Amino acid sequence: MNRENVTVLGLGQMGTALADAFLAAGHPTTVWNRTPAKADPLVARGAVRAATPGDAVTGAGVVVVCVLDYDAVRELLEPVAGSLAGRTVVNLTTGSPEQARRTASWAAGHGFGYLDGAIMSTPPGVGDRASMFLYSGSPAAFAAHRDTLAALGDPVDLGDDPGVASLYDLALLDLMWATLSGWLHATALAGADGVAATAFTPVAIRWLSAVTGFMGTYAGQVDAGHYPGDDATLDVQRVAIAHLVHAGRDRGVDGRLPELSQALIERAVEEGNGGDSYARLDELFRKG
Amino acid sequence: MNRENVTVLGLGQMGTALADAFLAAGHPTTVWNRTPAKADPLVARGAVRAATPGDAVTGAGVVVVCVLDYDAVRELLEPVAGSLAGRTVVNLTTGSPEQARRTASWAAGHGFGYLDGAIMSTPPGVGDRASMFLYSGSPAAFAAHRDTLAALGDPVDLGDDPGVASLYDLALLDLMWATLSGWLHATALAGADGVAATAFTPVAIRWLSAVTGFMGTYAGQVDAGHYPGDDATLDVQRVAIAHLVHAGRDRGVDGRLPELSQALIERAVEEGNGGDSYARLDELFRKG
Repeated sequence: MNRENVTVLGLGQMGTALADAFLAAGHPTTVWNRTPAKADPLVARGAVRAATPGDAVTGAGVVVVCVLDYDAVRELLEPVAGSLAGRTVVNLTTGSPEQARRTASWAAGHGFGYLDGAIMSTPPGVGDRASMFLYSGSPAAFAAHRDTLAALGDPVDLGDDPGVASLYDLALLDLMWATLSGWLHATALAGADGVAATAFTPVAIRWLSAVTGFMGTYAGQVDAGHYPGDDATLDVQRVAIAHLVHAGRDRGVDGRLPELSQALIERAVEEGNGGDSYARLDELFRKG
Repeated sequence: MNRENVTVLGLGQMGTALADAFLAAGHPTTVWNRTPAKADPLVARGAVRAATPGDAVTGAGVVVVCVLDYDAVRELLEPVAGSLAGRTVVNLTTGSPEQARRTASWAAGHGFGYLDGAIMSTPPGVGDRASMFLYSGSPAAFAAHRDTLAALGDPVDLGDDPGVASLYDLALLDLMWATLSGWLHATALAGADGVAATAFTPVAIRWLSAVTGFMGTYAGQVDAGHYPGDDATLDVQRVAIAHLVHAGRDRGVDGRLPELSQALIERAVEEGNGGDSYARLDELFRKG
């Protein structure tokens, strides 16, 4: 095995998991953290502790940064920018698409490769091929280091706009919060009549695989701007969601979540689109 | 093959699909509809047309009813109640848990078996074992006719409270609307920066399988009323959702959906539960 030298800057819970995954995959791994003692367990598992960020990046093909925010990224990398030429920085710090784009421009100005990434996993999922790691930025950097990044999870290439990985990160969390809120609301509704969450949830999880089928169909409708209600019309769903809102009120469950979908459905129907699918609401979300 | 005689009352799009699935599985199938011509295609495929509801139920082991609403169910069944003794009515009409419970009581008073059901599929999915058909009510009726009902889709037994199938139906639609709204919102966010829905959605679908993993963990937390934030705390998610709300505003996307989750997260944090998981919001939904 001839594994690439890697460096991990920032040893919070996630940074530590990243360094551990590199070590587990056999990469010579150098680590640095503002509080040096955080590196102790990693050093015990074979990592090399660097005294400074400058020492840490020397000799690394890939420098992974996972710190609090983008201000901390710049504060850390600015002083060592001269040592980064010819290397690739993979920034897994959470931030906005705009911050990612600015950092990529700055990196380009200093002649080093830059990938912006997002970790769609909690720390225990790092190193598991089922965990998605999203990357965007330099296609050359992605191609050159794909195998190294595969030690962390499944590397998903989102193309050359460095802001897109952060954007997907936010959008996927968005979907997660809406789904978890919907599930909690539904669980509260069923729970009001004595159904346990552990009884309802396996059925709910199975049902979500049908819902993802609708999403697959509706994605094409969104891109086409044409929303035929072949499977289920807004007219029909308008009646059903009124039942739901009513059932929730009867049971004293907070109604704001279904009432929001209800308001959007009713607006679409009022605008004459009751024969369309749920994907028609796309236009209402975009209109803001 | 010695398949049970079945009757389908109500031949809308769904009732027709039900009758077709019984025919495909080899059941002698009698059909009735207020407008008799609706039965023509089914008769061509081997169904027997009954002239009246009374004629239709005679000789059937299972009588499936799928009409507009529960008022229509009672209007249809009241005059033939005397002919239903010893048979089982399976009511797949959409309605509320309360309506299902009242209808079950009425059925018990007339000495016939009653199952209330919900079809978690559009008509084209009827007959597919991947489609869930939810049933609640008489355990004896479910046990006796399970094989017959399997012709329609996978029969899921939800126990003896006849209202529970309707309740699950509403709760699953609840989850569906929240998930689809979250997906549309996320798609609008990504779309504002030029990402196609058909590019974003496969990643979103893959991500949902991680989200269902969280649901599985959180279901136990909800039942226990104890919500340890081992994987991700509300404190951390509060910071991330502020990024999301901000990114949506910058892009002119309707913000009401993430702002609702944000308000709930902030309230839980203010109440001192910032170290808990997202499942802690359960209590806010239940409080109403």
